[in-house]
Amino acid sequence: MLNHLAILAPGLLGASVARAARSRAVAKRITIWARRPEVRLQLREQAWCDAAPDTPEETVKGADFVVLCPPVNAVAPLAAQIAPALAPEALMTDVGSVKGEICRLATTALAGREAVFVGSHPMAGSEKTGWEHGREDLFVGRTVFVTPLDSTPPPAATQVAAFWTALGGQVATVTPEAHDEIVAHISHLPQVLASTLCACLARRDPVWRNFAGGGLRDTTRIAGSDAQLWRTILEQNRDEVLRALRAQQEELHGMERALANRDWFEVQAILERGREYRSLFRPAP
Amino acid sequence: MLNHLAILAPGLLGASVARAARSRAVAKRITIWARRPEVRLQLREQAWCDAAPDTPEETVKGADFVVLCPPVNAVAPLAAQIAPALAPEALMTDVGSVKGEICRLATTALAGREAVFVGSHPMAGSEKTGWEHGREDLFVGRTVFVTPLDSTPPPAATQVAAFWTALGGQVATVTPEAHDEIVAHISHLPQVLASTLCACLARRDPVWRNFAGGGLRDTTRIAGSDAQLWRTILEQNRDEVLRALRAQQEELHGMERALANRDWFEVQAILERGREYRSLFRPAP
Repeated sequence: MLNHLAILAPGLLGASVARAARSRAVAKRITIWARRPEVRLQLREQAWCDAAPDTPEETVKGADFVVLCPPVNAVAPLAAQIAPALAPEALMTDVGSVKGEICRLATTALAGREAVFVGSHPMAGSEKTGWEHGREDLFVGRTVFVTPLDSTPPPAATQVAAFWTALGGQVATVTPEAHDEIVAHISHLPQVLASTLCACLARRDPVWRNFAGGGLRDTTRIAGSDAQLWRTILEQNRDEVLRALRAQQEELHGMERALANRDWFEVQAILERGREYRSLFRPAP
Repeated sequence: MLNHLAILAPGLLGASVARAARSRAVAKRITIWARRPEVRLQLREQAWCDAAPDTPEETVKGADFVVLCPPVNAVAPLAAQIAPALAPEALMTDVGSVKGEICRLATTALAGREAVFVGSHPMAGSEKTGWEHGREDLFVGRTVFVTPLDSTPPPAATQVAAFWTALGGQVATVTPEAHDEIVAHISHLPQVLASTLCACLARRDPVWRNFAGGGLRDTTRIAGSDAQLWRTILEQNRDEVLRALRAQQEELHGMERALANRDWFEVQAILERGREYRSLFRPAP
């Protein structure tokens, strides 16, 4: 059990970490810092928050485990800001959707200190952001990537993995680079497809939207996500997303060619390959 | 109330028509014909099926309303086959996902007879096909397209619309051509995107599939649909699907260009347009 868990800049994920940690007795004390004063006031009234100090530095003081939850472009600056305030034995992680740059910069921010940073990414987002939507069961059965660098002390990676396992997650330990390639394909590319499909339909008659069946609804659900948040994710993972996007464009060109050539055998073969792949998904958690 | 509703070749949609008609007392008598003898045996045991004769002709004999539910490429041949057996005052419709060719051919099949064909398309499919999955509430709150030709007697179109309204659907009456353009964008294009995304991911490490979050799951759910069925839908709506697919490719090229140029303003603008469009969907039924 942790003595003191500190969570900084909670949104959906940060609040869910606090709720899950409390309900599973993962930490004795939980302190949380939010940027907006009115959120800090509200946090102080939650059963899963023991204190909500006014600064990040106060919040992490004496903590043995720190979780940074701001947007991906704010993780490394926040890590640098709190570095001097961290306890020597502190472990720090984050929940960002891109890992390469974050892990490099956050590790640099702790250079020369005993505290260690190990990146994390729980695959448990939602188009609903905001700490109010936090759920104690958000991580149950979900993949959580833990992404140590070659230079990360192995016990630190093990402890971060154990933290997510304790919250119900299924940990996959990979390098930050492998992580970024994987999520470019299984998370960022689907987001780009959903968003561009809606952007494409927006150019046509808006009335069509009212005819949407379950297929269009599900296919585009994540297009409702926060645009600013996703812009920073795509910004941080640009190279891998471009690679994944080009692979997808190739596949679409193949379908276009088959339709144009009335090659119904090939059309069916593409559909069949997709169906086979989809049918082997694990059941949803 | 109808005196006699006949349903031919029921899958998910046909069985749901029968269940909904029975539970809402839309027809006094319901007869159903299925191609496979073992299905006819099972149908005879259902409370929502009064008889399951061995031929389509026997099944529609004396019916005032006939619903054809085979795959899109089999609707017109089945209409031609049963034409001589139809009662003079019979109304015939279908549930096919493409309407232009079906409406033209089925109307030709009835040329010189009093019986009238009016095409329908309930937007209530699922990746689960098969009559066993039928549900009496399948059409509640769902869009049902009714697609009369210019030559269709208006009372016939009105009666077909009233039938679907009685089953809980929300009817939209459009020309077959307008219908095919609309569904190419809001149904067939999403299917192509989901299938090609899975086909694209299938070329990579299959282990990645196990990391899928809710976003990938939802975005690709319909990729699990029957490939043969979708091949015939794409075949019948090839021209409109190609047009919609090319519009989507344009949109993706725009995103690719913006990422390649590090034009983050444009990246966010595309995401924002998608978000705006998606946020105005009606609540799901």
